[in-house]
Amino acid sequence: MSSRQDKSDDEALAGARERIDTLDAQIQALIAERAGVALDVARIKTARQRTDFYRPEREADVLRRVAERNEGPLDDATITRLMREVMSACLALESPLKVAYLGPEGTYTQAAVYKHFGHSVRAMPLPAIDEIFREVEAGNADFGVVPVENSTEGVVSHTLDQLVGSSLQICGEVALAVHHHLLSKSVDLTGVKRVVAHAQSLAQCRKWLDRRLPGVVREAVSSNGEAARRVAGENQAAAIAGRAASEFYELPMLASNIEDEPNNTTRFLVLGKQKVPATGDDMTSILVAIRNQPGMLHRLLTPGAEAGVDLTRIESRPSRRQAWDYNFFIDLEGHIDEPRVRQVLDAIESQAAMLKVLGAYPRAVDTSST
Amino acid sequence: MSSRQDKSDDEALAGARERIDTLDAQIQALIAERAGVALDVARIKTARQRTDFYRPEREADVLRRVAERNEGPLDDATITRLMREVMSACLALESPLKVAYLGPEGTYTQAAVYKHFGHSVRAMPLPAIDEIFREVEAGNADFGVVPVENSTEGVVSHTLDQLVGSSLQICGEVALAVHHHLLSKSVDLTGVKRVVAHAQSLAQCRKWLDRRLPGVVREAVSSNGEAARRVAGENQAAAIAGRAASEFYELPMLASNIEDEPNNTTRFLVLGKQKVPATGDDMTSILVAIRNQPGMLHRLLTPGAEAGVDLTRIESRPSRRQAWDYNFFIDLEGHIDEPRVRQVLDAIESQAAMLKVLGAYPRAVDTSST
Repeated sequence: MSSRQDKSDDEALAGARERIDTLDAQIQALIAERAGVALDVARIKTARQRTDFYRPEREADVLRRVAERNEGPLDDATITRLMREVMSACLALESPLKVAYLGPEGTYTQAAVYKHFGHSVRAMPLPAIDEIFREVEAGNADFGVVPVENSTEGVVSHTLDQLVGSSLQICGEVALAVHHHLLSKSVDLTGVKRVVAHAQSLAQCRKWLDRRLPGVVREAVSSNGEAARRVAGENQAAAIAGRAASEFYELPMLASNIEDEPNNTTRFLVLGKQKVPATGDDMTSILVAIRNQPGMLHRLLTPGAEAGVDLTRIESRPSRRQAWDYNFFIDLEGHIDEPRVRQVLDAIESQAAMLKVLGAYPRAVDTSST
Repeated sequence: MSSRQDKSDDEALAGARERIDTLDAQIQALIAERAGVALDVARIKTARQRTDFYRPEREADVLRRVAERNEGPLDDATITRLMREVMSACLALESPLKVAYLGPEGTYTQAAVYKHFGHSVRAMPLPAIDEIFREVEAGNADFGVVPVENSTEGVVSHTLDQLVGSSLQICGEVALAVHHHLLSKSVDLTGVKRVVAHAQSLAQCRKWLDRRLPGVVREAVSSNGEAARRVAGENQAAAIAGRAASEFYELPMLASNIEDEPNNTTRFLVLGKQKVPATGDDMTSILVAIRNQPGMLHRLLTPGAEAGVDLTRIESRPSRRQAWDYNFFIDLEGHIDEPRVRQVLDAIESQAAMLKVLGAYPRAVDTSST
């Protein structure tokens, strides 16, 4: 009976393999057809001297629909990534995008470039943030990608400072979530006698460790991956590391998202020259310069609160000019073309010495890393 | 007339957009179906306690057929990469591959991992080559990826040394080509008065520069990308850099592949426990220990030459043992299961103190970098 079962299994496997071969040929043919249509689009646009080959709002829209119609078995992040690579490859046929980013190669910013644009771009690492602004302004690059918030450094002030004086628009954002988990073969926290991690991660989870594992020895090693490897064979030790290490070393998560700062996300801005139309799920970033008067900040925030427009982020930076004291960088939910957003901006502007719209752009499609 | 043309263009663009949306939905549906079939395969294999979810020979075969049936407009490297990502995502549903590699993240070895396995693997950077061997031997990783030849360091001796004593098989190879070009807006070589590049690249192209641009000033900067950026606005300067910089800065290639060492390729080995069946285009790597006798090397190479089996590479390393003097690492074209290859190995073995087959594996599908 076992051999009959084996035979039917073999037949099923052979059938599956054939089906996969057929599907591969069909997928390949459709991708080729899609690329052909993209070339048609390029010919028409080129004849009309249009240069808007890459349209962030259209891309965000397409990817959101990919996630919406996804019924598995692949998860949303995976199927979105695959379809983005297909789009990226087709777009490169139309007109290869040039993207300057804060290098060197192998940094998170490079990962953000590929996550946002796919792998078919011409990506160029540059050594400083102002050089990326300059290359995009000069037209040498179509887009630039720079970090704007970094979980280890906080706000990247070079980027904010450059935004003040630049004519570039924010055309998009990319978020890479960075979460720390406590990984251990111990059945519970009381069994953990030692916590191993990179010193930075130990620091980022200090409050959690003080509260939940008081008095437990903390050991700093060269990387969180190394920490996971070390504790993989022990029952009384735990590592602080990410999901990849948990999966790789089959280390259960005793506790997840233990970082003290909950928004432990590295965020990047995509800079370009074009204004991006609304997609229905957008962000608007503005710069507001105000004179320091009592209650000023509150007055700035009131219009948004009254109109139900969420201000998701506000950063103050000392101004370099004389006439006022502070620049505020404010992110609002919604697109500047929406009347309710426009209304809030008008109200803020009436209170401020200066208001500059830095950009309105589709919200990041997903925040998973790589 | 222009407005009528505009209208027909608009209609054509709208039609193309609709067609692309339809194609995207179809591509997505087929990828989902492929993933479903992959899950069926996993269920059958799991029920039969089979663990060969990833079969290098099948994957190489599928990707070669992708390139064979490709009729454009995407180039072979691009369509192969897209289909590899689809395969990688489906395989991860069956059983996510764990791959240990020489870190840190962002190195060429990581690029080799993703190029070979796609992005849906659980990749773990480790700090030393022997740790990668250990993790694969211990079963913590399914595969390991290590550099074996590096254009800047030459042969990676740690990897060869580890191969001597390890039970692991070489299951695959990955090659990333590294080429240097002379990029300049000068119309010809005589117009070039200055060559800018990273010091290492200047050194790697020294003979070519001595011969073709004698007496021309060489200027070392922090990276080849930086060099390209600097000369982009000049007519009498040239940079040494790669294709990406040429495309990004629209700098014509005055001369291509100017590196003195023509095989300027970084090569990586994929290590695992499984023996890989023949695909029809394979390599076999062996280790041969011999006593140093006059003419020994010639006698080793004769059997291959007579049988028409090409020996593509031979590296000698001093042996650490007493009984003989040298270990030779030899790569042959063909698979050990082919009678003519088997015959050559038998003939070599009869001359040697020891012969160890390190692995037989599909030849790298393409050598383009990322």
